[in-house]
Amino acid sequence: MTGRSVWAVLLAGGAGTRFWPLSRAHRPKQMLALVGGQQPLLVRTAARIRPLVPDARMIVVTAAHLVEATRALLPAVPSSQVLGEPVGRNTAAAVALAAWFVVRRDADALLAVFPADHHVGDEPALRDAVARALSVAAQGELVTLGLRPTRAETGYGYIEVGEPLADGAHRARAFVEKPDAERAARFVAAGTHLWNSGMFFFSARAILDAIDRHLPVLGTALRELQGTGDPVDPTWFEGCWRALPSVSIDHGVFEKHDRVAVVPVDPDWSDVGSYQTAWELESRDAQGNAAPSDAVLLDAHGNYVRAPQGKLVALVGVDDLVVVDTEDALLVVPRARAQDVRLVVERLRARGDRRI
Amino acid sequence: MTGRSVWAVLLAGGAGTRFWPLSRAHRPKQMLALVGGQQPLLVRTAARIRPLVPDARMIVVTAAHLVEATRALLPAVPSSQVLGEPVGRNTAAAVALAAWFVVRRDADALLAVFPADHHVGDEPALRDAVARALSVAAQGELVTLGLRPTRAETGYGYIEVGEPLADGAHRARAFVEKPDAERAARFVAAGTHLWNSGMFFFSARAILDAIDRHLPVLGTALRELQGTGDPVDPTWFEGCWRALPSVSIDHGVFEKHDRVAVVPVDPDWSDVGSYQTAWELESRDAQGNAAPSDAVLLDAHGNYVRAPQGKLVALVGVDDLVVVDTEDALLVVPRARAQDVRLVVERLRARGDRRI
Repeated sequence: MTGRSVWAVLLAGGAGTRFWPLSRAHRPKQMLALVGGQQPLLVRTAARIRPLVPDARMIVVTAAHLVEATRALLPAVPSSQVLGEPVGRNTAAAVALAAWFVVRRDADALLAVFPADHHVGDEPALRDAVARALSVAAQGELVTLGLRPTRAETGYGYIEVGEPLADGAHRARAFVEKPDAERAARFVAAGTHLWNSGMFFFSARAILDAIDRHLPVLGTALRELQGTGDPVDPTWFEGCWRALPSVSIDHGVFEKHDRVAVVPVDPDWSDVGSYQTAWELESRDAQGNAAPSDAVLLDAHGNYVRAPQGKLVALVGVDDLVVVDTEDALLVVPRARAQDVRLVVERLRARGDRRI
Repeated sequence: MTGRSVWAVLLAGGAGTRFWPLSRAHRPKQMLALVGGQQPLLVRTAARIRPLVPDARMIVVTAAHLVEATRALLPAVPSSQVLGEPVGRNTAAAVALAAWFVVRRDADALLAVFPADHHVGDEPALRDAVARALSVAAQGELVTLGLRPTRAETGYGYIEVGEPLADGAHRARAFVEKPDAERAARFVAAGTHLWNSGMFFFSARAILDAIDRHLPVLGTALRELQGTGDPVDPTWFEGCWRALPSVSIDHGVFEKHDRVAVVPVDPDWSDVGSYQTAWELESRDAQGNAAPSDAVLLDAHGNYVRAPQGKLVALVGVDDLVVVDTEDALLVVPRARAQDVRLVVERLRARGDRRI
């Protein structure tokens, strides 16, 4: 580690549809207690990094309409540090906004960026890798954590690992976004590639310089913002924000930059990408059911069941289903088709149904 | 028909468990709108016989705790004619109570007894058969409607058809309760037997005489009741009622009597015995789903779905399921296992759960 202050940036702008009807426009995935108990993923993410970064130096970037709910979940984070995006503009804009916010207060700061809606089983392993990544970032590198692939997943980004640097880091030789199945299988078999974790580390100066170079439109917008003083006029800000390009920080900056490093880590990670994943991570009974303790499960196996407190769920003779009940909506889908939940949300959106 | 007054007796004491969680201790099957629209089966039963018997001559026998709810469903039936049983004592006691009630007001009355929770598709056919059955009953016979069997059902009672009598009736030669599959198949193939419909016709005098002869304990209790005047002391009545034998009118009286007739009829009848039956009777979409009109059904076939008004149900990639949602309980079971719903109720009862 270095003597420089570390600020954590939690990216909490997610508005996914794969956990409908639990997740809604006003209650996205990071606000759900999807795995192991009662704490929302966002709260668990903050708790995970709190040993490294105090709440006073946490920044949360979320959607404007979620700012109040986010502040309520993280009461120790200064409310001015929960930043609301008028519209989603992907991670480059969110990271840029956070870096701009931090650099005005702490010109020499290091930033550690975390998605707010992932699961990490081995927290000490993660924190060890974060410490090493920050050490490399202090040298001016843009750093990402690379996860050892456990399957030939085609939905993730892969990083080709290059020559070793200090602190167990490696040069990131190339980024490959969502390879086809054959290529993904080759990457996994060869051991040459890691999954891109979405966890990023850099100095505020380094990322702002890199944004200026690789995403000049975003850099210009930030300089305009810089000139407006504090607080920023919200109408002006919204207009400015809407005009930004929607691009990810990895695609928009990391892929094009020359000084990018990757720190391999194996922290029992999951992006909790579907009800199937939630079922895998949840504790289950001897019949493989993850269900409320008062559920009646007769000749039922491998089911994932969620229901409001006080609601009785009875399953008889059904296997491997997702059954998710909420106050105003109920979903039944085989676990193997958990990805198709988004089709329901699409259908509801198309007919103007507000229960999304 | 005859010049004698006909009184209808609706047997509404059912406390079945096969429609849990729609049916509950306080809302049994006859109070549910299980088929075709919004009217409870009890209300439809009354409507079906109203062309033959006015509300002023309808008697409803139900459980004591259901009397108020039953009166609310049938507001045109005089409230004194909704009789509450302190405990269920099967149909012989219920019929005896109704006959005793009627005979004190109309010594020459004919009675027409109907289960309150069945479905009839062809109401004119039913009413025609009822008229003929009453005509035979006026001769002093105990009469039942016999349904042409459509399958080798082992859960019903069968009646062997004997020599013809007047009005299309036949002597009932023998009663066979719940035959095994082989015997049931033989009955259906030979065309010698009809299903016992549970719809019975007799004069009040004839059934009371027959009860006196075949169920003397019940006859004696009725005479005691007769001696107490009106209104009956409820505590005394409850004690008397609890002491009665629990026996069906067909097994306790019809099977032993010498003057029993059966009128064959084919009124598109169903006892609505399970969610499977309810699905068969309900209108369905092109994919075979019986579901609320706002349900989202994607690649889903043959499902039976019920949910409270305003509750959105989404099924993706599931076939032939029963999905029944209520305010406090949710059931998911394959249609083919609809009979196993009672196992859920048994489990709930065993653990003292009040959601039954």
